[in-house]
Amino acid sequence: MRTLVIVSHPDIQGSSSQQFLKESLPTHEKITFHHLEECYPDGRIDCVAEQKLMQEHDRIIFQFPLYWYSSPAMLKQWQDEVLTESFAFGVHGTALRGKSFGLVLVIGNSEKAYQAGGREGFSLSAITIPFQAMAKKVGMHFLKPFGIYQFQYMDEPTKWKLLIQYQQYLCLEDSDSLKEREEWLIRALTATNLATLPKEAAPILEETITQLVHTRSELDELKLYLEGM
Amino acid sequence: MRTLVIVSHPDIQGSSSQQFLKESLPTHEKITFHHLEECYPDGRIDCVAEQKLMQEHDRIIFQFPLYWYSSPAMLKQWQDEVLTESFAFGVHGTALRGKSFGLVLVIGNSEKAYQAGGREGFSLSAITIPFQAMAKKVGMHFLKPFGIYQFQYMDEPTKWKLLIQYQQYLCLEDSDSLKEREEWLIRALTATNLATLPKEAAPILEETITQLVHTRSELDELKLYLEGM
Repeated sequence: MRTLVIVSHPDIQGSSSQQFLKESLPTHEKITFHHLEECYPDGRIDCVAEQKLMQEHDRIIFQFPLYWYSSPAMLKQWQDEVLTESFAFGVHGTALRGKSFGLVLVIGNSEKAYQAGGREGFSLSAITIPFQAMAKKVGMHFLKPFGIYQFQYMDEPTKWKLLIQYQQYLCLEDSDSLKEREEWLIRALTATNLATLPKEAAPILEETITQLVHTRSELDELKLYLEGM
Repeated sequence: MRTLVIVSHPDIQGSSSQQFLKESLPTHEKITFHHLEECYPDGRIDCVAEQKLMQEHDRIIFQFPLYWYSSPAMLKQWQDEVLTESFAFGVHGTALRGKSFGLVLVIGNSEKAYQAGGREGFSLSAITIPFQAMAKKVGMHFLKPFGIYQFQYMDEPTKWKLLIQYQQYLCLEDSDSLKEREEWLIRALTATNLATLPKEAAPILEETITQLVHTRSELDELKLYLEGM
């Protein structure tokens, strides 16, 4: 799967979360990182190039800090100019149909604030409705939004977990599927360059892979058994 | 009540609906019409002036064509730059608290498209959640959105009705209140310059006013009677 990450941030250099996400991009997958404000500092968007870029990918991600419950202005301009009728919707506008569409949202407030009765009062499912409506209009499959809450307070282990979940969100057909995540983990462990790790790490990696394969095999057997009952 | 209409439209001259709304503004009320793209053609917003303008008004209206289920980019930029923490939210950001906030949305599709199962799939109540969340955050009272659907297909009588509803939306404390709308109508009829009308119009206006006063009096009596039961 080829994934296009369209990032909108007016000051990406000053954003530790965006820098972290950029460095977290998996190198062994087909991912295009595309920062709008950097590409178009004068605000003049090359619509033809943008449409071509979208057509070359299977999954489109909008990645941005949540400003006033929506995207920065640059991404809004991009939507208004790039998603034209003949391209994205209408009788002949079928270029995006069948692709998957996701949101990676960096959010300053805590997760519990985003619910009825919470400080923000609305859930992420509610706030992102304009993007859901857009995905529906152009025929893209809307993925669960990937919310990153209060990055500035995360400790290192939480960030490592975030890194893995982010990579899976970008690359897996269904990042909720345990099986897909297991397969992804085995691929990632297999691809790990042992020379970059302490000597004693090699047998641990090997054992982990064996264990994952074994657990999956047991789960599959159990499933077959249950289906046969 | 002083009302500030903040309009965002990249080509307001070419928009018949926006021109109609501009010409529909009541002259005898305290209304400020403020078109962002005209004020800031280079995109550099004067935040201090904008904040001052908001403070001078009791009702804030965002008026725009619905692009991708949200506002044009210019209004988004305005939100991100003008609604600062020390001004609009946070401990000392109380400048907007208690004001009312409304949306005037010009929408190309039909009203019935905006519902579950409809062509757009989401209601206006759902699509406008980011603005509702904004109003909540800054302590403004959110008014029902004023949706103008398919202006291009409206006949003259429908446009006259729209004109009245638009004026009432901008100026009345509660434009759902029959009593407020009656009073507004009596004021408007009384202020009408008879010299601009055919001679036979004067008695009709007078009779209409008498009728409105009479009906209101009957309704009030009935209400008193019911309350006493």
